[in-house]
Amino acid sequence: MEGKQKADVIVIGAGLSGLSAAKLLKESGLTVVVLEARDRVGGRTYTVTGPKFKYVDLGGAYIGPTQNCILRLARELGVKTYLVNEKEHLIHYTKGKAHPFRGPFPPAWNPIVYLDYNNLWRTLDCLGKEIPADAPWTCRFAEQWDNMTMRELIDKVCWTRTAKNFARLFVNVNVTSEPHEVSALWFLWYVKLCGGTRRIFSTTNGGQERKFVGGSGQISEKIAEQLKGGVKLKQPVVRVSQNAGGISVETLTGEKYQGAYVISAIPPGLTTNIHYEPELPAIRNQLIQRVPMGSIIKCMMYYQKAFWKDKGYCGTMMIEDENSPISMTLDDTKPDGSCPCIMGFILARKARQLITLKKDERKQQICQIYAKVLGSAEALKPVHYEEKDWCGEQYSGGCYSAYFPPGTFYQFSRALRDPFGRLFFAGTETATKWSGYMDGAVQAGERAAREVLHAMGRISSKEIWKEDEEDQDIPSQPVRVSCLEEWLPSVPAFVSMMTISTFGLVALGLSLVKPSMRLHFFK
Amino acid sequence: MEGKQKADVIVIGAGLSGLSAAKLLKESGLTVVVLEARDRVGGRTYTVTGPKFKYVDLGGAYIGPTQNCILRLARELGVKTYLVNEKEHLIHYTKGKAHPFRGPFPPAWNPIVYLDYNNLWRTLDCLGKEIPADAPWTCRFAEQWDNMTMRELIDKVCWTRTAKNFARLFVNVNVTSEPHEVSALWFLWYVKLCGGTRRIFSTTNGGQERKFVGGSGQISEKIAEQLKGGVKLKQPVVRVSQNAGGISVETLTGEKYQGAYVISAIPPGLTTNIHYEPELPAIRNQLIQRVPMGSIIKCMMYYQKAFWKDKGYCGTMMIEDENSPISMTLDDTKPDGSCPCIMGFILARKARQLITLKKDERKQQICQIYAKVLGSAEALKPVHYEEKDWCGEQYSGGCYSAYFPPGTFYQFSRALRDPFGRLFFAGTETATKWSGYMDGAVQAGERAAREVLHAMGRISSKEIWKEDEEDQDIPSQPVRVSCLEEWLPSVPAFVSMMTISTFGLVALGLSLVKPSMRLHFFK
Repeated sequence: MEGKQKADVIVIGAGLSGLSAAKLLKESGLTVVVLEARDRVGGRTYTVTGPKFKYVDLGGAYIGPTQNCILRLARELGVKTYLVNEKEHLIHYTKGKAHPFRGPFPPAWNPIVYLDYNNLWRTLDCLGKEIPADAPWTCRFAEQWDNMTMRELIDKVCWTRTAKNFARLFVNVNVTSEPHEVSALWFLWYVKLCGGTRRIFSTTNGGQERKFVGGSGQISEKIAEQLKGGVKLKQPVVRVSQNAGGISVETLTGEKYQGAYVISAIPPGLTTNIHYEPELPAIRNQLIQRVPMGSIIKCMMYYQKAFWKDKGYCGTMMIEDENSPISMTLDDTKPDGSCPCIMGFILARKARQLITLKKDERKQQICQIYAKVLGSAEALKPVHYEEKDWCGEQYSGGCYSAYFPPGTFYQFSRALRDPFGRLFFAGTETATKWSGYMDGAVQAGERAAREVLHAMGRISSKEIWKEDEEDQDIPSQPVRVSCLEEWLPSVPAFVSMMTISTFGLVALGLSLVKPSMRLHFFK
Repeated sequence: MEGKQKADVIVIGAGLSGLSAAKLLKESGLTVVVLEARDRVGGRTYTVTGPKFKYVDLGGAYIGPTQNCILRLARELGVKTYLVNEKEHLIHYTKGKAHPFRGPFPPAWNPIVYLDYNNLWRTLDCLGKEIPADAPWTCRFAEQWDNMTMRELIDKVCWTRTAKNFARLFVNVNVTSEPHEVSALWFLWYVKLCGGTRRIFSTTNGGQERKFVGGSGQISEKIAEQLKGGVKLKQPVVRVSQNAGGISVETLTGEKYQGAYVISAIPPGLTTNIHYEPELPAIRNQLIQRVPMGSIIKCMMYYQKAFWKDKGYCGTMMIEDENSPISMTLDDTKPDGSCPCIMGFILARKARQLITLKKDERKQQICQIYAKVLGSAEALKPVHYEEKDWCGEQYSGGCYSAYFPPGTFYQFSRALRDPFGRLFFAGTETATKWSGYMDGAVQAGERAAREVLHAMGRISSKEIWKEDEEDQDIPSQPVRVSCLEEWLPSVPAFVSMMTISTFGLVALGLSLVKPSMRLHFFK
């Protein structure tokens, strides 16, 4: 095709991040073209409709308090939220038994395990506070923590098998990868960006508090509508060439676009899909090989009735069982009570194991574990099953987001959103709050857009970074840590204390008995 | 461009592996097209010429005994080899001091360190023997070893700081990455494929024994000549589409090729550069995000005279010094004694640190450490400097080869050379002997070619894998492990033995003194 199409800014990727960037730029009076590889917008959010389930989010779905970017955007676009059901008890399933509970984390009755859990969450949050959100490589422990995996850190922090096992599930659920795969520095940073261990893992007052009525895909669709013809589908970008005069982009179908700036709003690992002229700087060229996407199959099991609620369960299950495909579930019934559904995640190692099965085999296995955990044969009789394997998606690479293997975050993260000439970087992986989430996608997209506005001389450098105010309708409650939780000893500290105090008591006891009796002890 | 160009087989990548494949296929009577992204052939081998140094290998250069594929190919093409100089002493530089030595590894005078070194090499080789070269995921310890980094394994095996530090250098030199970055399973497998710790690390009787007279680039150039117009330069592949009828390939310039089969002969991580129709299987889609290339800058310092030889040094330096850019050197003087030169590697973390410096700053730092290690101010007066940063190469991604971060080799390595429909996989990363080396590239290329011949019904499945006979002119000597080395205890075993024998001696002593005397001890 001859002739280049022109725009002030060309955005690569019509996910939430790219569309947020394009929206802001268009509102600033610039012309924008968004090039999307797929035949749809939304990226890692994907809402489909069907008679059996009305609509379902096959990708990113959950939002919660403190995610003020996505909440603001949704309100502006007229998309409402609803609460994920957490009225009844949650279930922690471990060693073949279901334990109902309330709160973000399963409780422990064994006092040693209780101390160990408490120390785990406290330590992860404390270490996270040491890491600057926008410059993790400057943390004074950056190199040391980056050179160990989360498995190593967990092994150092936890003393009981119970806490270690749950810590693995915590990593699996939050970053769709294994503790031995990810850098401790990166994971601590990731959790910190979400407000800590409780905020990231909670439904009520946490990252999974709500969903969008009608599905998260609407946000992207509504922005795309606003951009009118500005979004070009089925246009995977294959080349980005730039010089002092401008930057041009070429797609797989041979279309050519010319602009003043380009924003890349795809996961960093997928930017290897593009040929660059001139070549990327060495650090970025190697960074983009080092950020694999997590592994997940998202599974929705539909039932005639929300039978779990009758049993006093809300539908949240945390499942520790190597034979269970699913590690974590949430109720996915519609807000009006229709289409009763359990949403479950097949995560990390399990996604890779079970990917080779047939859909129906996965369905069977999932029903069986639900029947065990919920203690109900009704779980064996679903009326419908939907699933989405994100590992096989060429233009996502996986979900939820990219992770950093050990040794890479310290030396490469500084290149994550460093502009390369006229090329700027968005995408949730470049966010400094709720990175990996829809909220991070919007923050990153808008920040990249403002970087371009700054490069054009339209705004000052101080205006690039903006913090949204707390959402009025969905305010966050502070995450409370009780005095007890703050001051309880870790297991080794407790053991030391017990040892010392036992000796002390014996010494005290001895000092109280008659001197003549004392000798008696040593006879 | 209209109209597709046709060939029986289309090979992606004109490195050693792709060209070996194309050569074999052409000799089998098939038509072949090789598509190369760069404006040159050779891939990670790259020989340049200049008046100051005649010729120099900026990339892959070393060959040695047991590398029978590349040796056979070189002989056939009339490229001769010469011995890398190891006549004089090698130097191990540590704690600011140079220690001359002979042999593959620096010796230890401290007996505890000696035991620790000995146990390290023995353990790495023993564990390697457990791993099947062609199916590492079937090793009974595969999951366990893959879930730890080499740093964790080193920390388990080594008891002394000295051995741990040298083990880090050993990993840096062999795989251009850090011990905390790589899977222990993968590294053990990699070393095993090279014949073990001594073979991989040795000059004499090892992987660095020889170089090619005139440079390694000649191999690729000579094959390209034989293929005549069959190699198309500056044709990065952007799309591979296949169906029951055939497979087609499209390049960045819009050229289209149609064939019966395609061989991908580029590093697995670089295949993310291509858009696939249909999409890759999920496991391969995620595998190719998980195989980053190592980090290296190769540096050649030319001098008026090989002054190190006058001092009794051969030019090999193993440098343990956090402030030294270079970790390993070899004499790179031409076989006729002209162009005296020290070749040095800036590896892994150091490559990433020093990449931002100017070429001249690196040169200064390198000269300074050479002056210290060789104890000669002559090192400060080079006559010429050549370097090649492979981290910045878009179409290599890095050098020498891809590594597997923890947790990936066990679940993903089975997909490394699994054909995908009409698409087959070559490249040194898919080899089962000397993977990561020129020899592995040739083995993999020829194997992939024979897979295609088999798919066409021209050869049987038994003929796919061929083992070259031992090269007559460059035979290997067995790697000898002395009885002492085999049976000496590890440090903890030694300490236990000493403890037990001390107690034993005391007991024996006591049993020999008079009973009345015995009581005396307890008074």
